[in-house]
Amino acid sequence: MKRIGILTSGGDAPGMNAAVRAVARTAMANGIEVFGIRYGFAGLVAGDIFPMTSDSVANILTRGGTFLYTARYPEFAQEEGQLRGIEQLKKHGIEALVVIGGDGSYHGALALTKRGFNSIGLPGTIDNDIPFTDLTIGFDTACTTAADAIDKIRDTASSHQRVFVINVMGRDCGDIAMRVGVASGADAIVVPEKPYSIEAIANKLKKSFANGKDHGIVIVAEGVMSSDDFLKELLKYGDFDARTEVLGHMQRGGEPTVSDRVLASKMGSYAVKLLMEGKGGLAVGIEDNHLCTHDIVDLFDSHHVGDYSLLAMNDDLSR
Amino acid sequence: MKRIGILTSGGDAPGMNAAVRAVARTAMANGIEVFGIRYGFAGLVAGDIFPMTSDSVANILTRGGTFLYTARYPEFAQEEGQLRGIEQLKKHGIEALVVIGGDGSYHGALALTKRGFNSIGLPGTIDNDIPFTDLTIGFDTACTTAADAIDKIRDTASSHQRVFVINVMGRDCGDIAMRVGVASGADAIVVPEKPYSIEAIANKLKKSFANGKDHGIVIVAEGVMSSDDFLKELLKYGDFDARTEVLGHMQRGGEPTVSDRVLASKMGSYAVKLLMEGKGGLAVGIEDNHLCTHDIVDLFDSHHVGDYSLLAMNDDLSR
Amino acid sequence: MKRIGILTSGGDAPGMNAAVRAVARTAMANGIEVFGIRYGFAGLVAGDIFPMTSDSVANILTRGGTFLYTARYPEFAQEEGQLRGIEQLKKHGIEALVVIGGDGSYHGALALTKRGFNSIGLPGTIDNDIPFTDLTIGFDTACTTAADAIDKIRDTASSHQRVFVINVMGRDCGDIAMRVGVASGADAIVVPEKPYSIEAIANKLKKSFANGKDHGIVIVAEGVMSSDDFLKELLKYGDFDARTEVLGHMQRGGEPTVSDRVLASKMGSYAVKLLMEGKGGLAVGIEDNHLCTHDIVDLFDSHHVGDYSLLAMNDDLSR
Amino acid sequence: MKRIGILTSGGDAPGMNAAVRAVARTAMANGIEVFGIRYGFAGLVAGDIFPMTSDSVANILTRGGTFLYTARYPEFAQEEGQLRGIEQLKKHGIEALVVIGGDGSYHGALALTKRGFNSIGLPGTIDNDIPFTDLTIGFDTACTTAADAIDKIRDTASSHQRVFVINVMGRDCGDIAMRVGVASGADAIVVPEKPYSIEAIANKLKKSFANGKDHGIVIVAEGVMSSDDFLKELLKYGDFDARTEVLGHMQRGGEPTVSDRVLASKMGSYAVKLLMEGKGGLAVGIEDNHLCTHDIVDLFDSHHVGDYSLLAMNDDLSR
Repeated sequence: MKRIGILTSGGDAPGMNAAVRAVARTAMANGIEVFGIRYGFAGLVAGDIFPMTSDSVANILTRGGTFLYTARYPEFAQEEGQLRGIEQLKKHGIEALVVIGGDGSYHGALALTKRGFNSIGLPGTIDNDIPFTDLTIGFDTACTTAADAIDKIRDTASSHQRVFVINVMGRDCGDIAMRVGVASGADAIVVPEKPYSIEAIANKLKKSFANGKDHGIVIVAEGVMSSDDFLKELLKYGDFDARTEVLGHMQRGGEPTVSDRVLASKMGSYAVKLLMEGKGGLAVGIEDNHLCTHDIVDLFDSHHVGDYSLLAMNDDLSR
Repeated sequence: MKRIGILTSGGDAPGMNAAVRAVARTAMANGIEVFGIRYGFAGLVAGDIFPMTSDSVANILTRGGTFLYTARYPEFAQEEGQLRGIEQLKKHGIEALVVIGGDGSYHGALALTKRGFNSIGLPGTIDNDIPFTDLTIGFDTACTTAADAIDKIRDTASSHQRVFVINVMGRDCGDIAMRVGVASGADAIVVPEKPYSIEAIANKLKKSFANGKDHGIVIVAEGVMSSDDFLKELLKYGDFDARTEVLGHMQRGGEPTVSDRVLASKMGSYAVKLLMEGKGGLAVGIEDNHLCTHDIVDLFDSHHVGDYSLLAMNDDLSR
Repeated sequence: MKRIGILTSGGDAPGMNAAVRAVARTAMANGIEVFGIRYGFAGLVAGDIFPMTSDSVANILTRGGTFLYTARYPEFAQEEGQLRGIEQLKKHGIEALVVIGGDGSYHGALALTKRGFNSIGLPGTIDNDIPFTDLTIGFDTACTTAADAIDKIRDTASSHQRVFVINVMGRDCGDIAMRVGVASGADAIVVPEKPYSIEAIANKLKKSFANGKDHGIVIVAEGVMSSDDFLKELLKYGDFDARTEVLGHMQRGGEPTVSDRVLASKMGSYAVKLLMEGKGGLAVGIEDNHLCTHDIVDLFDSHHVGDYSLLAMNDDLSR
Repeated sequence: MKRIGILTSGGDAPGMNAAVRAVARTAMANGIEVFGIRYGFAGLVAGDIFPMTSDSVANILTRGGTFLYTARYPEFAQEEGQLRGIEQLKKHGIEALVVIGGDGSYHGALALTKRGFNSIGLPGTIDNDIPFTDLTIGFDTACTTAADAIDKIRDTASSHQRVFVINVMGRDCGDIAMRVGVASGADAIVVPEKPYSIEAIANKLKKSFANGKDHGIVIVAEGVMSSDDFLKELLKYGDFDARTEVLGHMQRGGEPTVSDRVLASKMGSYAVKLLMEGKGGLAVGIEDNHLCTHDIVDLFDSHHVGDYSLLAMNDDLSR
């Protein structure tokens, strides 16, 4: 294998740059040429491809976002898109790829592998919603950003003895909500995967205030409902001085945390080694603290399973 | 003067605790006893008053919010509320007050002064909308929090080549928007005090993208319109991939910056010295880098004037 | 079991407060009374013990240090100290303990268990030098603080084209150095557990500068040698414009990261459950992402083993 | 005026990049071509000069350090160096310069002005030791970095009931020490410009501990003596559990604060306007919150005067 390509796809996530750097540098250290592909699969099809040097990835380890840019490109599900992409790969002599992104990225990586271009997928998304990995690249940073914001919101909540209903990202996955909720000492955490009772939450908040607590924090994962809708429901059960906050896209950006930098570095390095062994069609993950691979095809029927024991634990820890 | 009281009122702001500490410690250093009054004027009327020791203000210099709690209490505009408040002051032997807060706080401070209890007002609000002061306590921290969030949003904006319309706080005052806009290299800053053309902003963004810039940031002060409404207007003039973000209440909290800690310390210290000189009915400010006072009554007909030259400067600096 | 005690011992670490909170709240949720013991084993012997309420641990989840204070107290290795400590436990009706700290803490916990007071040890130290756990409470925060500092140092290193030799904490353990080195893109990482060649490091730096890199970062774990001594050696092999930096005690403090808050919460909660099952003399750890226990006695002959594969990986990733 | 050059000189400071961006963009907005000069006066003499586009300064507003690099180059004090520098300016058609840096930069700027190349000096240094300006570019960021570090150190100081003697930067200027000391609630601040009594400091610390305070923080400006030497003296007057910490070069780096970004932007913009008015040999400053200019020659006999009233105020505020 003499030449590999690398692209980022789907929503951006902090640590994508660190992963790109790791792929590029590991390949170069092993005598493999590396080509950057801009704008994900859209750029692959359009031929927005450039040879990378060691310099291309200098000073990006700590930068949020993805300097390769990213785009959603559903057209790559069609044969036509794939064939045009392959033409571009051939033109540049690229034999294999590393694809960093979320769900959609894996479909593209599998399609290319089936057509003879070994591709390895790395889980790059803040949502932590990829099966067969405990952690995705960007998740720890998003949790950190959200927890920092909630630490600030708690100040104003306490000063005014208010309840805040805070919407965090994660789409259909409650992992950000759970981790951030525990880290913030939230009174309640509401995730789409598990049942909840708004009345019980209201009762807990009432009891807390009665016991002298000076604020309330309820974390609602975006897959549940909007924080405004949630608050409306909550106010049916109690007359709280309450506000909502949507943390929004700031959760997607920012410098990756140490954990994300290290995770992305390890995964990027590992992906190249897999390609060097002639492997393709694999999704890299980290399970029980060890790098692992699964056939991409197995991801499509699977669901990420979070650590829902955090919910019961948090109920004991907050009062 | 043997005993003074201190309260925080209106919306909370980072640095209020630092100001309370400065008032308390300066008074104690000068042999004056200090009473803390919780929940602003509401707590004054209700008698939620306690003697402070040096310990009471230990470890609060760096904490956001106000440990004295705050509340809005329009009833204090009425004679009845004021008389009940004065009763409480007499009960505790409190002869004078320092009041930290926004607009409403000054009305209370003036009313008490007129009734024989010298009161000094300190400008504690993130909005920077107090007349006769260049800076309010909390403003620098709010700008810092907003700029940090925008730095993160820029990552994801760039990765996707998007425009973000970002709503920042400030009520009718554009100071946060202007300062944060300059600090973030925003493409456009929209404030309620000055005319603007959404079409011109759209044209600037189009030109920027045409010149190769990979993102757009528009800062809209909350006093202008919602970021959703603004985006709707903007999309009339250009087909941008765009999102909105409301930074929200996180701007009110968090550890005060060095600037806010120092400003609050200086103002709190100064307020006690004014009371020791027998003064009251004064608003403390900082103008041209010097602490100053103005009769509170003069504030009511005045408006804070921002540094609008930042708008034209920013137009040159962003491209 | 009706009453448990909790203490922190040895060097402080961010997340100790989160662990104390988790122990206290979990115990209370299960109807167990909790006593705080100040100043570690010294305070136990001196009887500095107080009943905790839910309020005692309010607002400490996010605070660095340990509000229970800590102290080194080698006298607890002697029978006399232990007997006096047990007297105090009896006086307060405390039947079991959770001890949070480093190496010395485990000896005390084991001694108390042997004398009939079940004790569970939690690994609280930034150094990550405890056997049978992949992570200690405080390690992630210390790495984050160190990496943040190095991100800043890189700015000035690049501006002046300098080499910085940076001393990070960890005593005889290179884990902080390795994790921070990878996260910082260090040119070289030197740890006490593995051989290294200063000449080879100098040659790598020379090659980097020759290839156009504008700075050099060498991370030296404190267990290797001082950064000043290291620099002296380095300068024998190359005429670098170089400086040293000792990150020092700031690495021990600060708000715990999300990871440390969650880890401490889980471990604290788990420790109480172990005590409720009548267990003692156990060290809690996290191995392969799962909470685990080991007999404390087994720790004394064992050594923490780091992930030394990071060293080779980093050599490829930095250039 | 059709072409200007820009360089950074002396020690780097956060905000230098923001100032370079402001100079470049303001010039371009006014139809003036801009040339970047790398490595300060050394690069000017060596001809390391390149034409800048708007892109050259994209994404640098928030970056620490200086992407133009900097160097100390005492040779520029000699006629030979100056003549060679002028040759380079002529070769590129550069008619005027903006020089950002500390003391040495001003000498170079004045020399060039005298030889017919109008030059404006901007105060870029973390030390705040430039006469005729209340603030230098980088000062607020350095204070913020130092205060953040001290906030962390306080955690471990409190946990162990320790005294920390902390060395902060500033060379012969105590401004960082004073501002950081007030912002950190230091027990004592020692600056080179004012007398101090180590015995009195020891007595204050003893009294604080006697009153129940759980830690001590002494800030010593680097111009006074080393923190190790200071601690030796301190221990003559009291038997403290004490440690030293040298914050070091991390104070020079990092993302500039909002204040520094805005200040640098305003100064950079202003410098171009001065050149457009045909002015040279001027140092830009900010006095009493207004941009101002002074003849560079007047700086050489003057000394920056700090706000030493902070020392007495801090004595009252800390206990």
